Amino acid sequence: MSNQLYALAEQLGQAIRTSSDFQQLKQAYEAVRRDETAYRIFTNFRDLQMRLHEKQMTGAEILPEEVEQAQKAMTLAQQNEKLAQLMALEQRMSMVMADVQQIAMKPLEELYRSFTE
Amino acid sequence: MSNQLYALAEQLGQAIRTSSDFQQLKQAYEAVRRDETAYRIFTNFRDLQMRLHEKQMTGAEILPEEVEQAQKAMTLAQQNEKLAQLMALEQRMSMVMADVQQIAMKPLEELYRSFTE
Ligand SMILES: [Ca+2]
Ligand SMILES: [Ca+2]
Repeated sequence: MSNQLYALAEQLGQAIRTSSDFQQLKQAYEAVRRDETAYRIFTNFRDLQMRLHEKQMTGAEILPEEVEQAQKAMTLAQQNEKLAQLMALEQRMSMVMADVQQIAMKPLEELYRSFTE
Repeated sequence: MSNQLYALAEQLGQAIRTSSDFQQLKQAYEAVRRDETAYRIFTNFRDLQMRLHEKQMTGAEILPEEVEQAQKAMTLAQQNEKLAQLMALEQRMSMVMADVQQIAMKPLEELYRSFTE
């Protein structure tokens, strides 16, 4: 059984939830949520991104206009103070999460590496 | 600072390393490593898979012969007892890791979900 692993994962989740990175990210989300303009720019940007991602995954053709549209939506988002703040905090959070994952997965990585050497 | 997160990630890594799932996986790798036939089938299979994966990533054409070759290599691997054992243990480990990740990432998932509702 892996009960100890799950208990530690639970603790890690709680530590993430109470971290200042997470709390700041949550506040940034709430600030965007309360701001109609910021929220509309955000949902538009996300919808465009998801459509492009889906096309990439299914190998469908991506039109130059669509790339341009997505770039414009990104620029609009970056020019919005609340969204710029949210994206900066999201990036910081994903860097922390990548570090956390790398540390936790080190034993497996070492095992694979030693095997393929 | 996220020192607490990193300390917990370190603990999780140690718990993974000492788990029976990991120890069994390690033994299965060592058994394959010691068996020339099994190891040759494994490296051949992995090389084919990596080549196909690279082609998929770069959008290069995958020939029917290559798909067939990969399927044959997979069948060969499954017929080898040590490799079948290794693959079963790898699958179990990746299911445990997926659970662990899902538990630890729950706060972020909830944050995103509440935002997009
Ligand atoms: Ca406004
Ligand atoms: Ca042999």
